[in-house]
Amino acid sequence: MDYAKESLRLHYEWKGKLEMTPRAAVDSKEALSLAYTPGVAQPCLEIQKDVNKSYELTRRWNTVAVVTDGSAVLGLGDIGPEAGMPVMEGKCVLFKAFGGVDAVPLCVRSHDVDEIVNTVALLAGSFGGVNLEDIAAPRCFEIERKLKERCDIPIFHDDQHGTAVITLAGLTNALKVVGKKLEDVRIVINGAGAAAISITKLLLSAGAGDVTLCDRRGAIYTGRADGMNWIKEEIAQVTNPKKRTGSLADVLAGADVFIGVSAPGAVTTDMVKTMNKDAIIFACANPTPEIFPDDARAGGAAVVATGRSDYPNQINNVLAFPGIFRGALDARASDINDAMKIAAAHALADLVGDDLSADYIIPAAFDPRVKDAVASAVEQAARDSGVARI
Amino acid sequence: MDYAKESLRLHYEWKGKLEMTPRAAVDSKEALSLAYTPGVAQPCLEIQKDVNKSYELTRRWNTVAVVTDGSAVLGLGDIGPEAGMPVMEGKCVLFKAFGGVDAVPLCVRSHDVDEIVNTVALLAGSFGGVNLEDIAAPRCFEIERKLKERCDIPIFHDDQHGTAVITLAGLTNALKVVGKKLEDVRIVINGAGAAAISITKLLLSAGAGDVTLCDRRGAIYTGRADGMNWIKEEIAQVTNPKKRTGSLADVLAGADVFIGVSAPGAVTTDMVKTMNKDAIIFACANPTPEIFPDDARAGGAAVVATGRSDYPNQINNVLAFPGIFRGALDARASDINDAMKIAAAHALADLVGDDLSADYIIPAAFDPRVKDAVASAVEQAARDSGVARI
Repeated sequence: MDYAKESLRLHYEWKGKLEMTPRAAVDSKEALSLAYTPGVAQPCLEIQKDVNKSYELTRRWNTVAVVTDGSAVLGLGDIGPEAGMPVMEGKCVLFKAFGGVDAVPLCVRSHDVDEIVNTVALLAGSFGGVNLEDIAAPRCFEIERKLKERCDIPIFHDDQHGTAVITLAGLTNALKVVGKKLEDVRIVINGAGAAAISITKLLLSAGAGDVTLCDRRGAIYTGRADGMNWIKEEIAQVTNPKKRTGSLADVLAGADVFIGVSAPGAVTTDMVKTMNKDAIIFACANPTPEIFPDDARAGGAAVVATGRSDYPNQINNVLAFPGIFRGALDARASDINDAMKIAAAHALADLVGDDLSADYIIPAAFDPRVKDAVASAVEQAARDSGVARI
Repeated sequence: MDYAKESLRLHYEWKGKLEMTPRAAVDSKEALSLAYTPGVAQPCLEIQKDVNKSYELTRRWNTVAVVTDGSAVLGLGDIGPEAGMPVMEGKCVLFKAFGGVDAVPLCVRSHDVDEIVNTVALLAGSFGGVNLEDIAAPRCFEIERKLKERCDIPIFHDDQHGTAVITLAGLTNALKVVGKKLEDVRIVINGAGAAAISITKLLLSAGAGDVTLCDRRGAIYTGRADGMNWIKEEIAQVTNPKKRTGSLADVLAGADVFIGVSAPGAVTTDMVKTMNKDAIIFACANPTPEIFPDDARAGGAAVVATGRSDYPNQINNVLAFPGIFRGALDARASDINDAMKIAAAHALADLVGDDLSADYIIPAAFDPRVKDAVASAVEQAARDSGVARI
């Protein structure tokens, strides 16, 4: 099927992929007096007395804003807020279909960190959480950090943390397949964008001991002179403990794990051959991966994952964000912290269970168990880590 | 019925009066590839090429933001953004039920004009229009003015303009009942808030010749020393041509029309007696009017309207805003201007037709003809006045 052509035709037919549906009738004077004036004054006054009642008397308990500035939409780059809307609407559809979450798409006409932060922060009282989407790095890190400081609701940049959660889930199982431990393996991550940075942080938080990031200039290390920015400087402080230098090919030699969130064809069969025995390859560039599964296996890789649905082991964010927000909303969490993300990853990994194999390290996107498993684990982790409010 | 108690009970049961509903399926890999990646890239690129396509390929064509800062909610005053949400959700339900419009409630955590303006302006690319709601005067005028300057979509403060449209509609028919003309009558408006100012401006725009506003200190006139603000100064320039001074009772003597958007009991039977023959009384304070219909009639009033549904001639905004936005969206209008508001008022007045009487000057809230009549008139006026974009 020509997905581009057929999708465009359908978008003209849909005229928008989601709509607002009333849950209260206003079809008589009496109904109107209950859903609207004068009756509605009473729930208003209850919330005025106790603002937490907004989670019981309005849709806030189940509603998330999906926010973009349109600066890094899919692989299309900076296409602008209006052009990002079809993706945001699609994301909101996934939120409802896979997590039962009401999500409202908001595209912001600004690339300025503080303007975006102000806009979202001032709307925080209308929502139970905020999902940031397709915002370019390194701006996205600053926006997320500032919003977390200002808001009393979870702020979650899915391109970063959703990807990180699935990657940790998949890697946990891939390591089981080859009989290695996260603490012991040497991991190389290619890419220094939103996803790469977040994957690195979550792997470290989950116990990884040796992670090295590469960008187009090769290994990132403290004191590197060229092509650095504040986030690379920051990440260099906690990664690459052996201060490896050189190209991706250089640092990949002897590594156990390659995780690519970078560019098509960045890895060759020959490069995989230089890796440690039973190498694990996550080639997540989409639609064309850093290396195709057959080529990776030809180099000796034991487990291969990609972002594609037509190969085994798809790293697909839809496995994580609906359940993560479902769990966070159910706990009325003030944050989505590392403990909750790690709990989500382990819940996903555990679903594979005894069926674990090199070609099945992560549940399929439509596995009906995923939502509840992730949501329960995240809700419990929210309670255990002290960010739950009910 | 105890509306307060029953409404509160229902609000706990509803857990939010509206929700997001998907219009596209994502129940298979193929469906996901069409509504989301990779297919969704194509509609994105179409919008990037021509931003007007956002009205065809996303829900923008039918979506309005309902925005408040929670500072003047119903008659409850400044109860805060979260506490305003039940009203905003209710308003959004009315938008869908009476206008087929998808409306998204947004409560802004700020009372600062520029912060509110920035927030809304930066989101304008996500919506086809903005309905401002329950924002205190005089801040609401400045917010609306600045937003109209910055945005390419209609900005409409319903507390002002919705009320003004219904008032003009009712007054048009009330004048027919008593055989007087808008150009000739002397009109006194009590109140100097959002609704009063907008009613004044719209009546003048529709041809009224002699309008005097009163606040608690009495008649507003150019050069009055006390209790003025910038909007009262501005309105004084174009009203009260005879420079009347004194109390409401003073200026009401000899007037043809009283329009109250003020406080319960502001007018007495004796005051009505001093008015011109066949006086028209719009006593819109809610739920307790400036004067009850029986008392007004005892003073000689020929036509009486209120904001209540249990008396004839209810001035109810639900008659206007759904059809006005429907028409504006259908024309993809860049503005909702006076011509469109006057067209809406006349369409409403015309619906009464041959059934016109002192007790039937305005259609009932549930009259099924209202939406289409108002929408068509507004759409046509948008075209005629050059603000339509399709």
